[in-house]
Amino acid sequence: MAKKAFYAQSGGVTSVINASACGVIETARKNNIEVYAGRDGIIGALKEDLIDTSKESAEDITALKYTPSGAFGSCRYKLKGIEENRAEYERLIEVFAAHDIGYFFYNGGGDSQDTAYKVSQIGAKLGYPLTCIGVPKTVDNDLPFTDCCPGFGSVAKYVATSIREASFDVASMSTTSTKVFVMEVMGRHAGWIAAAGGLAAEKASDGPHIILFPEVAFDKKRFLKRVDECVKAYGYCAIVVSEGTQYADGKFLADAGVKDAFGHTQLGGVAPVVAQMAKDALGYKYHWAVADYLQRAARHIASKTDVEQAYAMGQAAVELALAGKNNVMPIVVRDSDTPYKWHVDNVELVSVANVEKMMPKEFITEDGFHITDACRKYLLPLIQGEDFPPFKDGMPDYVVLQKIAVAKKLNKEFIVK
Amino acid sequence: MAKKAFYAQSGGVTSVINASACGVIETARKNNIEVYAGRDGIIGALKEDLIDTSKESAEDITALKYTPSGAFGSCRYKLKGIEENRAEYERLIEVFAAHDIGYFFYNGGGDSQDTAYKVSQIGAKLGYPLTCIGVPKTVDNDLPFTDCCPGFGSVAKYVATSIREASFDVASMSTTSTKVFVMEVMGRHAGWIAAAGGLAAEKASDGPHIILFPEVAFDKKRFLKRVDECVKAYGYCAIVVSEGTQYADGKFLADAGVKDAFGHTQLGGVAPVVAQMAKDALGYKYHWAVADYLQRAARHIASKTDVEQAYAMGQAAVELALAGKNNVMPIVVRDSDTPYKWHVDNVELVSVANVEKMMPKEFITEDGFHITDACRKYLLPLIQGEDFPPFKDGMPDYVVLQKIAVAKKLNKEFIVK
Repeated sequence: MAKKAFYAQSGGVTSVINASACGVIETARKNNIEVYAGRDGIIGALKEDLIDTSKESAEDITALKYTPSGAFGSCRYKLKGIEENRAEYERLIEVFAAHDIGYFFYNGGGDSQDTAYKVSQIGAKLGYPLTCIGVPKTVDNDLPFTDCCPGFGSVAKYVATSIREASFDVASMSTTSTKVFVMEVMGRHAGWIAAAGGLAAEKASDGPHIILFPEVAFDKKRFLKRVDECVKAYGYCAIVVSEGTQYADGKFLADAGVKDAFGHTQLGGVAPVVAQMAKDALGYKYHWAVADYLQRAARHIASKTDVEQAYAMGQAAVELALAGKNNVMPIVVRDSDTPYKWHVDNVELVSVANVEKMMPKEFITEDGFHITDACRKYLLPLIQGEDFPPFKDGMPDYVVLQKIAVAKKLNKEFIVK
Repeated sequence: MAKKAFYAQSGGVTSVINASACGVIETARKNNIEVYAGRDGIIGALKEDLIDTSKESAEDITALKYTPSGAFGSCRYKLKGIEENRAEYERLIEVFAAHDIGYFFYNGGGDSQDTAYKVSQIGAKLGYPLTCIGVPKTVDNDLPFTDCCPGFGSVAKYVATSIREASFDVASMSTTSTKVFVMEVMGRHAGWIAAAGGLAAEKASDGPHIILFPEVAFDKKRFLKRVDECVKAYGYCAIVVSEGTQYADGKFLADAGVKDAFGHTQLGGVAPVVAQMAKDALGYKYHWAVADYLQRAARHIASKTDVEQAYAMGQAAVELALAGKNNVMPIVVRDSDTPYKWHVDNVELVSVANVEKMMPKEFITEDGFHITDACRKYLLPLIQGEDFPPFKDGMPDYVVLQKIAVAKKLNKEFIVK
């Protein structure tokens, strides 16, 4: 009998990570490979808490293609270095061996690709060969080599749509009401999501008029001057601000002092900070919005291109494994901008791990407040096409899987710290 | 030649107020009545700044049906009492007389219906008979008599969809990450919008688990106890909080101290307050979102029922005027819940003015934290059906009108204070 596959979702979920899961499972099924999924990501493997995906109906697996979030559960748990906690890696191999798992598909960002690589290394050392394939995912769009990361296109479409709609709203009332509107979006170190907001502005008078990127040191004086210019020229000023916007000294505008499991500072609330600045200095009435999880969960306004790529990455992961590849991650390669054409290739996991792809300098205008035509040319294909989920009772009809556990074979509990 | 009509948008705009404008203009065109629109609402009338809608193409007027915001501009300008500022009312009549305007269609909430009524009274006193018809609009759903207010159903659909999506997201990561998610929605005095979030929860384990209404005095201790119960029972707690949530003494949880032109306190930022409370008392990791204008501008996820009703109200306004009615506002009357059937009737403006329809007590569960089946039965029909706008380049393709001004006939400037 063929070896089984283990699939896990890792890190912040997206509105299309389940489309990748669907690609993995449907392709595995076609090839008679059973897939066990980790409940809550890699933690499920450590705890031997595996979900038997073969118990899910074909209809429910297909429904993953239009269901946001991580259907099997995800986690922000990062395995330590092999020297620090070898026991974790050995446990993974022990669990995989007990369940005859020969394939490890890890669906996540840079941190997760690093983990997948390490797992494969330790497996080899312990004499348990394991095929490890990464499946790219991150709304932050910061993985190297791939044209884009599944999850990003849909956030981009949500952000561009939302700031266009809010700008229309503000424009229509600015004579007597709100003159400054600030929308905060995700993006800790890279301004890709904020940049996507720029797509809504097809001419200078369209919102957003200002984008604040993590890549550009925030200069309060210059910012306020630009806000005032926009209000005077267009009647209002719509601003997209990245949560990662920081001063020249590296201090975030909204540093809450909370850190996550990866040691990253947890941010939030830069929109009210920026709005209040404009109010205090210029006296303009403001409103602000913080999209937070709404942006990465907004499957109802997902990009069709993104959904297709997410599925293709999952499918390719299984196909690469079956073709004998190991320690690779499928990527999207762009063939042309207009019309957007792309194909699937793959890169070595070791070259992906822990590398952040920043926005190229030439994607940000010289004044630091908007995107260039080059950026628009890059971004626009990624938000093309709509892929509305089915609706029931007026709301998207998302699937909740049964998530039936595989019977445990080991009688040792493993404590996840 | 037939008298002309004046149409103006008033107060906070919605994603379907332009559908009402479309209903007014298309119906007027069919009856050979020219419509002048106020630029920036009633201020346009005071300043004799009128937009000639006959200069807009039929295609562009039809496109209003799927364009959010106020296409002609709206304002939060409230006419003072007749005793306080009689000059304003006289000016309106002077402008209407100069342009041979015989019909006044005022598209707004309770304050605006009050204004429309007063204008008709002063017209009669000054010997200039004017047909004044209100067109209902408000996301707050707080107008009396009508089954619902155009604008509300679409916000309701956005809020229910968004909290469902965010709840899926949080649920999938709650084992190791965020356990409390708070989404702030509009609704100053009435909890209709917050209640709509409740539709996303079809069973107790679904988010949102807690809704905070302006109608229920906030009790911190009871709230924190409920949050803890939800996290323990469901792994996480998703909360929808109305911006108008207040303590027993009437103090808003998020009182920014800013007041608008109507003297209403401008609120914002209750979500972080509530989230921080849970963190401080229970230690749970949190995230929060403030939808702000995104919710009322989200035409991309509008309710088809709402769009149809908004159009029908505009159409009915013109038909009522042509049938010789005066000082009335068309309303939606519900004939049945399932299937939802409704017809158009009308009520006297004087009975609508400045009356706020609160949520019935029986729409809120006894513990004050969720909606009842009666509420669900009321709300569910209002979010039925999708009416996606056309998309271009991956984003909704909304129309911007030409807004060509009518030549002024008066040589007096009027200063709007």
